[in-house]
Amino acid sequence: MLVVMKAHATERDIADVCERIEKAGFRAHAIPGAQRTAIGITGNQGAVELGLEEMAGVAEVIRVSKPYKLVSRDARDSNTIIKFPNNDATIGGTEFAVVAGPCSIESREQAFAVAERVAAAGARFFRGGAYKPRTSPYAFQGLGEEALKIMAEIRDRFGLIVITEAVDNESLELVEKYGDMIQIGARNMQNFSLLKRAGRAKKPVLLKRGIAATLEELLMAAEYIMSEGNYNVALCERGVRTFADHTRNTLDLSVVPAVQRLSHLPILVDPSHGTGKRNKVTPLSRAAVAVGADGLMVEVHNDPDRALSDGPQSLFPDQFDHLMEEVRQIANVVGRTMTSPAVHSTANSAH
Amino acid sequence: MLVVMKAHATERDIADVCERIEKAGFRAHAIPGAQRTAIGITGNQGAVELGLEEMAGVAEVIRVSKPYKLVSRDARDSNTIIKFPNNDATIGGTEFAVVAGPCSIESREQAFAVAERVAAAGARFFRGGAYKPRTSPYAFQGLGEEALKIMAEIRDRFGLIVITEAVDNESLELVEKYGDMIQIGARNMQNFSLLKRAGRAKKPVLLKRGIAATLEELLMAAEYIMSEGNYNVALCERGVRTFADHTRNTLDLSVVPAVQRLSHLPILVDPSHGTGKRNKVTPLSRAAVAVGADGLMVEVHNDPDRALSDGPQSLFPDQFDHLMEEVRQIANVVGRTMTSPAVHSTANSAH
Amino acid sequence: MLVVMKAHATERDIADVCERIEKAGFRAHAIPGAQRTAIGITGNQGAVELGLEEMAGVAEVIRVSKPYKLVSRDARDSNTIIKFPNNDATIGGTEFAVVAGPCSIESREQAFAVAERVAAAGARFFRGGAYKPRTSPYAFQGLGEEALKIMAEIRDRFGLIVITEAVDNESLELVEKYGDMIQIGARNMQNFSLLKRAGRAKKPVLLKRGIAATLEELLMAAEYIMSEGNYNVALCERGVRTFADHTRNTLDLSVVPAVQRLSHLPILVDPSHGTGKRNKVTPLSRAAVAVGADGLMVEVHNDPDRALSDGPQSLFPDQFDHLMEEVRQIANVVGRTMTSPAVHSTANSAH
Amino acid sequence: MLVVMKAHATERDIADVCERIEKAGFRAHAIPGAQRTAIGITGNQGAVELGLEEMAGVAEVIRVSKPYKLVSRDARDSNTIIKFPNNDATIGGTEFAVVAGPCSIESREQAFAVAERVAAAGARFFRGGAYKPRTSPYAFQGLGEEALKIMAEIRDRFGLIVITEAVDNESLELVEKYGDMIQIGARNMQNFSLLKRAGRAKKPVLLKRGIAATLEELLMAAEYIMSEGNYNVALCERGVRTFADHTRNTLDLSVVPAVQRLSHLPILVDPSHGTGKRNKVTPLSRAAVAVGADGLMVEVHNDPDRALSDGPQSLFPDQFDHLMEEVRQIANVVGRTMTSPAVHSTANSAH
Repeated sequence: MLVVMKAHATERDIADVCERIEKAGFRAHAIPGAQRTAIGITGNQGAVELGLEEMAGVAEVIRVSKPYKLVSRDARDSNTIIKFPNNDATIGGTEFAVVAGPCSIESREQAFAVAERVAAAGARFFRGGAYKPRTSPYAFQGLGEEALKIMAEIRDRFGLIVITEAVDNESLELVEKYGDMIQIGARNMQNFSLLKRAGRAKKPVLLKRGIAATLEELLMAAEYIMSEGNYNVALCERGVRTFADHTRNTLDLSVVPAVQRLSHLPILVDPSHGTGKRNKVTPLSRAAVAVGADGLMVEVHNDPDRALSDGPQSLFPDQFDHLMEEVRQIANVVGRTMTSPAVHSTANSAH
Repeated sequence: MLVVMKAHATERDIADVCERIEKAGFRAHAIPGAQRTAIGITGNQGAVELGLEEMAGVAEVIRVSKPYKLVSRDARDSNTIIKFPNNDATIGGTEFAVVAGPCSIESREQAFAVAERVAAAGARFFRGGAYKPRTSPYAFQGLGEEALKIMAEIRDRFGLIVITEAVDNESLELVEKYGDMIQIGARNMQNFSLLKRAGRAKKPVLLKRGIAATLEELLMAAEYIMSEGNYNVALCERGVRTFADHTRNTLDLSVVPAVQRLSHLPILVDPSHGTGKRNKVTPLSRAAVAVGADGLMVEVHNDPDRALSDGPQSLFPDQFDHLMEEVRQIANVVGRTMTSPAVHSTANSAH
Repeated sequence: MLVVMKAHATERDIADVCERIEKAGFRAHAIPGAQRTAIGITGNQGAVELGLEEMAGVAEVIRVSKPYKLVSRDARDSNTIIKFPNNDATIGGTEFAVVAGPCSIESREQAFAVAERVAAAGARFFRGGAYKPRTSPYAFQGLGEEALKIMAEIRDRFGLIVITEAVDNESLELVEKYGDMIQIGARNMQNFSLLKRAGRAKKPVLLKRGIAATLEELLMAAEYIMSEGNYNVALCERGVRTFADHTRNTLDLSVVPAVQRLSHLPILVDPSHGTGKRNKVTPLSRAAVAVGADGLMVEVHNDPDRALSDGPQSLFPDQFDHLMEEVRQIANVVGRTMTSPAVHSTANSAH
Repeated sequence: MLVVMKAHATERDIADVCERIEKAGFRAHAIPGAQRTAIGITGNQGAVELGLEEMAGVAEVIRVSKPYKLVSRDARDSNTIIKFPNNDATIGGTEFAVVAGPCSIESREQAFAVAERVAAAGARFFRGGAYKPRTSPYAFQGLGEEALKIMAEIRDRFGLIVITEAVDNESLELVEKYGDMIQIGARNMQNFSLLKRAGRAKKPVLLKRGIAATLEELLMAAEYIMSEGNYNVALCERGVRTFADHTRNTLDLSVVPAVQRLSHLPILVDPSHGTGKRNKVTPLSRAAVAVGADGLMVEVHNDPDRALSDGPQSLFPDQFDHLMEEVRQIANVVGRTMTSPAVHSTANSAH
């Protein structure tokens, strides 16, 4: 904490501020400058709320120390690499992780049709919504446990790792049972009750950035999960809300190097929600791998025009094939590995 | 829905779009213009996802119909007035409702000290946090059920109506038991699971606007609650996140007349979270009553400098007295009633 | 300036940072804390760019001192009151200044019709655009000098003080000649070449906040004008750009007390551009006077539906009468004076 | 234009709206829907301001037609390719254009030192500020004409194309005389007086997106230039202002494919201003070429720690070499050509 005094602050004002700080059990360090004095506070753990801003002669109070602990590179220098028991795929290592699938699981047929195509194209992670947070109560809300069972079958059939969203404690329990990785959606990024529950889960967590979350808030949401003991957390940028209206959200790719500087946690990018428009998903996917993200989360649907949710931003399977080709070439340039589609497709036919 | 065609769209492009619309069971109305053709879609309930934006010749797809039903003035013309069983205070009528109290209930002594002062100043609603959503897992998280019991005592002792936040199904059950009105906080505005549970509660709900929620999203969150059968919903503006850095959030007072035009639900304003700075709470409270809000939610603490949360934005009791004086005078001008502090203070001494 | 070191920074890292600061001729003050060290820099005038952020062990560099001088309350404690030679109206004193008139001067008839009504309602300042910054080059761009001549006549006829916008050096020269106060519009708030020219003008300046300007940028734009010698500057909040879509802009009323805390310059509010919707102008005008603004700038048109610009946000004269009544009552409550419409109308008939 | 009526609008309300539209000389097309009626307006050129939103029964007025003409792909289908007389470099063709140089020209030595390095690394365009728009009037404002003369020498010596900013009519005249391409900065994107002057210039224009400009406003600013006869316009994304605080601005890469869909004009990306942090320039440069931009604008300084402006975001020459290597590899993947550094460096030594 740093207290900046006004230019006209008196010696007395400064002494009063120092006294209040010392009385609260902290240390005050007055730093006289040419125009004004600043007072540093040390000895505090986190924010100090002493009403300093309202004292005579005080211009401003600036918070200095950062509140994150476990998520920070101060706590762990090497990157977190998330591993999965029944598969050698990883998130956060040299592998570029591609998560693909429909917004919602609508039926066994639809889910299998999409899974077959994304696996063949080289994706090793499958996404699909069972519990859908929808703006309208009258919109399709997901198939629930039935969808989870379909995804468990997909894991067995295609060797894909299943990631799906939990929206409350009840659904989290089921996702933990059927899925491989628990997604916390953007709308729940500060649902602290849910974060704590995810922190007690035995499966890794994919935490999406809230639509108006600062980098610090995103990291603190991950801190909630880690503080309960679950250290397998990956972050995901999915666009933030701004005045810009040419896309549904504004994809903030600069958060990728910013996270990597501060934290050891991996970060993925979701260009489907990040743009909301099918014709922008592939260019922004290229940009995401180029900027250095650890992976990609993309919506693919076998028949987007009839999708029950997010149709306009879902790719056709052929478009996803094309995306994978382009992403793979850039991944090579930036030193990331991806499984080749040929190898994978052989693996599939072995099933 | 309206499909705007490009200037160079061919007759064939237009026919294709119309055909897709008709095939989906809706009606297409082509409107030829000087430069380009637009195609109206009718017969649809809510959004149509036909992939039209990706079709040849299509420039843009514009959603026209609004998704809200029960919250809308189309559904109910006269204002919703929320009443409470053991008190004649109301929200949404001519009374200007003042909700005041500490951010968190920290102890019986602190809560009673604040309650006494805000009741004496003329507030008829008491706020106090039992379950606190905090950005950091290491910050004070609230006293839980103990806090709820203290507030129940406060209701009995001071005749105040108790409003407190629920953060998950478990806490909602307890808030419903001990409190008079259930608050859903900004971070949970799109926690649809919690909204549905609140919709099945027997107590009124105060729904705060999310930090980046559009007016439509705010109304749809209220629609979630109402669609489960609970029609006693009040909204609350508490500042939105923008680039502006002179306040913690940017208080958007224009949302008050905007809500009133579209919806019959009452809307309060919270200038404490809306500004995050004690010295701005009173001016913005004056503005809130002047703009036509149905009430005010203000943080007051008997000793803000030692508050466990939100100290910098909490008023001293004397400042709250002053705020009430100023608000009362403007309330008179805009045709709102408020109980006088004298009458109230007598009532208190009768206890 | 304050340099925050990482928790793991070595003694050597700290010494290196201090050395670089001292070599540049400033003083370094190391403040060791429980977890990390911070280093204060003094002796610098304004920002220091020493590449400190990129040095080993450095977590963050925080700018502490504020760059404004002349606009600051540090430079002048008492409020600036702007006076006008041929009229006793003021901006920044106890008088609540009301500026009203059409967006554009379209003809002598239109301008006189509006001026007569706003003067009769008690406004003492007249606004009207001669040079219009329009998003489209094909939209009406203003009548130029002809409009200025019409406004000069209006001053003589109705005793109103004329405020009109300059968009470049040429138009500024003419506005200075014909008008009483020079407006710099939101789009030109950081047109520093124009600000400097306005700083050399002999007439007061009304500076509108840019659509995405921080408080600091607004004050620094005023500093540009004052640094050239023109100390008669009033600021104007006219809405900022956010994600919110229920109004054209988001009117940020909290900037009023924020300006008043930091600066001695007066600040007005423009709810017409601030909301972009006629039905929101009156409620937000009430809020503006209640929050403590020094005045109001409102668009009024005798026939808004045929206005060549900004019709949807312009009030009918009868609506403006009503607005003035409401504003006057709240002005009384907050200790502001306004001329009564009756007196004024007599003055007019004396002409 | 489309007028959406309320659900309860009467036949009479609808007839009134249609009548007002027809009286104004346009055509009204009523489209009855299941719940409400919409009314399309045709025959209008641009926006119609008939006060419809305030009429009885009207819920909303939606603008449909886009105001841009010359910038639009409707006007010209093939991409604009900007050429330069004394050099075969292009902007908008298959070549990926790299513009590099210091924020400000500080001296002949500094400028030559930087130019030599960026030319050797393969950049074919040189940037350098002669007139600097600075937030503070007390900050370095640029060397003016002296800087322009230095840059003219650089063109002759290194074969680089010179791009530099004009801030008013006077500086534009000089930039037109000494430079090869006129930059209009973000703060002047809606300085329409300057845009018109640039539209009468004989040199191509690089137009930077304003800090809070929508895509439509950016395109309309280009329309201002083109409407005066100058068709050689390139756009440049340089970050927009949002709540996010981990970068100086939020670089909006999705605007690149969005521009390319609507307009034939080339678009560059400036990751230096877009992030404001040296350590983020290279990752975002990779992302910019990957997303499909036509070029890059990067700040490079021979001694960033002593730069008079923008030091923290300027690259060291060695960092720029590294950036070019990475960008070149991704350019290959996305089908863009870049001159190789070796060839270029030979060309230089031939001088």
